[in-house]
Formats: sequence, structure tokens, C-alpha cells
Amino acid sequence: MRITIIGSGNVATHLAAAFKNAGHRIVQVYSRDMQNAALLAYHVKAEPIDNLSQIDPETDIFIIAVKDDVIGLIAEQLAPYQKLMVHTSGATDLYALLAFSDNVGVFYPLQTFSKAKEVNFRTVPLCIEAADQEVAKRLKELAYGISNSVYDIDSQHRKTLHPAAVFACNFPNYLYNVAQQILAEHQLNFDLLRPLVLETAEKVQNSLPANVQTGPAVRNDEITMNNHLRLLQGYPDLQQLYTLLSQGIIKMDIDRHGDK
Amino acid sequence: MRITIIGSGNVATHLAAAFKNAGHRIVQVYSRDMQNAALLAYHVKAEPIDNLSQIDPETDIFIIAVKDDVIGLIAEQLAPYQKLMVHTSGATDLYALLAFSDNVGVFYPLQTFSKAKEVNFRTVPLCIEAADQEVAKRLKELAYGISNSVYDIDSQHRKTLHPAAVFACNFPNYLYNVAQQILAEHQLNFDLLRPLVLETAEKVQNSLPANVQTGPAVRNDEITMNNHLRLLQGYPDLQQLYTLLSQGIIKMDIDRHGDK
Repeated sequence: MRITIIGSGNVATHLAAAFKNAGHRIVQVYSRDMQNAALLAYHVKAEPIDNLSQIDPETDIFIIAVKDDVIGLIAEQLAPYQKLMVHTSGATDLYALLAFSDNVGVFYPLQTFSKAKEVNFRTVPLCIEAADQEVAKRLKELAYGISNSVYDIDSQHRKTLHPAAVFACNFPNYLYNVAQQILAEHQLNFDLLRPLVLETAEKVQNSLPANVQTGPAVRNDEITMNNHLRLLQGYPDLQQLYTLLSQGIIKMDIDRHGDK
Repeated sequence: MRITIIGSGNVATHLAAAFKNAGHRIVQVYSRDMQNAALLAYHVKAEPIDNLSQIDPETDIFIIAVKDDVIGLIAEQLAPYQKLMVHTSGATDLYALLAFSDNVGVFYPLQTFSKAKEVNFRTVPLCIEAADQEVAKRLKELAYGISNSVYDIDSQHRKTLHPAAVFACNFPNYLYNVAQQILAEHQLNFDLLRPLVLETAEKVQNSLPANVQTGPAVRNDEITMNNHLRLLQGYPDLQQLYTLLSQGIIKMDIDRHGDK
């Protein structure tokens, strides 16, 4: 396919590379910032543009990978080309595009991307939604070309997925940061915890989290929990967080086993 | 070395296997429950016992891997053998053993173990504390025999490490559970989030968490955060958790970049 990438952020970068590797032709990369457009365009042998008036109409699909609040604006300007058009946002309704065209869909890669780190795209879940069967067929073909995990997820379900992803990714990363800060304050290196962080994530690749929960809260070990709270003295926010998370774990365990 | 394992839980099981693989002789495995003692003893070709009166005095070290609150009790009963004696607890002072003998130390593997999943012990950080230089030397030799990551950590620092490990492991696992529950309620499979969970942990193997934070909070994207809070309606605990964690992320970002 001939593919036009709108955007030059993390999602645009990783998707463009995956499409290119799968043998597609990246026609153009658009960014408001010509330097960003040029950088990504160079990597995928495309033409960089920084103005939508320079769009090459000889393309099969527009991949709109921009900030949520400008998806509608961009879609409105691309609609006249009457090409297949998708956005890549977990938080945005298909309607943001349907308002301007029927030939639209969503192509949402459920992964956290950073430019510095390569991702094996074949393991990235791709959540597909389409305005009709014909679009669905084309998007799935495109999706299976770069990933083994392709899911039909409509806007309603994607809305659910997005906060769940925050709990599974953004919040754990913040807790890693808390742990690192606690160590740093005592001149201890985060290397001490890195294997633990990785193993914790690896454990739930084949188990449900509730079945592999460890730590003082799930043992209802009040002595240890009180010791920890004392060590967090001077950090009322962290104490509150510690208490709330521990209560959640205790409650989760009661839900599973009945009140012991 | 001739090693006696006191306990048959996750830590005892993984340590015993690692010592055995490194060429040590496991003399006995003690557990109050003979079935548990027998199961682990069978795997490491040791004698199972369920009574401390059956201890074989022909050993070089007692590895006390039991619940924190019985470490002292066990140590008191083993002290008369005048052998090297260590506990494996992150939350227990060296003094719990020093009260009974000078020939003591701590051998704390900073990892989350489950019996069902093998762990590559060479990557497990081992935190060593010893009553004196001679003990330190022997414990480090033992430690480097099974792991590449051996650290000197005294009781004071270990106390800090323990709550940090809770933030790095137990709490993220609970958040995975929250994510899984949100999906399950909408008939979505946790498989959708498993690659995200893993990638999030892999990202901080070479970066500091604060440098790879993503999500609506770090962007201060209030519209998305409010949408998420609305979706969590009916779950006041999760709403509170969402708000507290998001505020933490926003504050973390301000601390790094100054108030924008």
C-alpha cells in the first residue's frame, strides 16, 4: 500500500517503521515541524511536508497519529482526498473521523512507545475499528502484516481499554519512580530493583495478577506495613498511597477467598 | 559447602535449587510440615526433617528462610550448633540473629519468587550483611557462586529497600489486577495488556522511570483524566487511586521541569 503518515511522534515513528519493514511504501510524512517531519521521512524514505496543502493525493491511506485534540481538524482537511483515513488514538471515538467521511477507521496500537527504544511490533496488540466491512477487511490486512495480535475493538470498548492501560502502564511506571526516589535518598542504586520490576511484569504474562500477588498486604502483615508507613514519615502523599494500595490488595484477597 | 535449609517456602525453594546447581551439598530441609520438607528435599537430594531436634550437626551453614516472626525462635534453637547462620528476610534486622550468636549474617535475595516460575538466579540481586569480616567473606563467596549481583547492604539500608520493593513489585502487580478487572467487566481479555505491562518494565531496565513516564497525567491532559474518572464511576476506591497517582505524576513532572 501507499501510506501517508500524519504526525511524527512516538506512535507515528514506530508505525511508519513497521509499515516500511512490511514492504509498504511511505509516501509522505507530515509534521507542523519540518525538522521532525524530515527526520522520520528520512528513516522511511518518504517525502517530508509541513503543510497539508502539500499532500500527495497518490496515496491509499492516511494514518493520523497526532494529539487527540487536533484529530478532527486534520481529518476535516484530509477528507476531500476521499482516501481511507484512520486515527491511532485510544481515547478518541471513531466519530471524530466519521463526521467527515465514511471511509474511515481506527488503528490503535496498544503499546507504550519511546523513540529511544525499539519495539518488536509483531507482539503489539492492534485494536481495529472500521466504518464498514470493506474498511475492516483492508485495515486487518494491513494490521496482520505488521502484528500477530489483531483485535476488533469498537469505540465503546476502546474507551474502557484506555484507562485500563493507564493502570497497567503509566501508574506502575510512576510507582517505579517512587521506589527509585526512596532508594536515591539513601544512596542506593535503582539497579537493585530492576530485576524485581522485570520479573513482576514477566510473572503476569502467563498468570492473572491476583494469583501471583505477594507482599505484606496480601499476607495482612500489619507489623511490616506499619514499619513501612513509619519509614515514609515526612511523605504524607506516599503514606496515603501506600495505605490505599494496601487496602486494595487486602480487599482483592477477601474478594477472592471470602473474609478470612 | 554443606548447607541446611530451614523453611520450604518460595525463597527456600529457589535458594536451595540455586545452591544445588552451584555444586553445594544440601544436607537437610526443615519444615514444620513434613510433606513440604519432603517435596523440596526430594528436588535437592537432601534429607527432609520436621523437627529441629533432628538437625544434622555436620553442616556449614543454616539458611533460615521462614516467616519473619519466627526467625528469632528458630535462631535460638540453632545457635547451640555454633554454625554460620543467616536469615533471608528483607524486613528483619541482623540483630534478630546477633542476639544468639556472633557467627551470623543476612542473605537477602531481592526478587519475587513463585514456585511455579523458574528464575535465572544469576540476575537476582543478593543483599549481604555480616556480623564480621570473616562471615562477610564466606557469604560473598557463597553469593557470587549463584548470582552476578552481590551488594553490601546493612540492616538500616535494607529497611529502606523493603518498602521500595513493595512500590516496585507488589503495588504494580495490584494495578495490573485493577486493569485486568476493568477489562474483564467488559469481556476484554488481559492478553490485550500483557505486552504493554512487559514493555513498561523493560523500558526502565536502561532508563530512569521519570524519564520514560507517559500517559495523560504527565501531559496534564485534564479532558482524558476526567473521562477516565467518569468511566470509573461506581468505583470510588479506584477513582481515589486514579486521582492520587495522577497527582503524583503531575507533581513528579513539576519537580523535574519546574512549574510550567
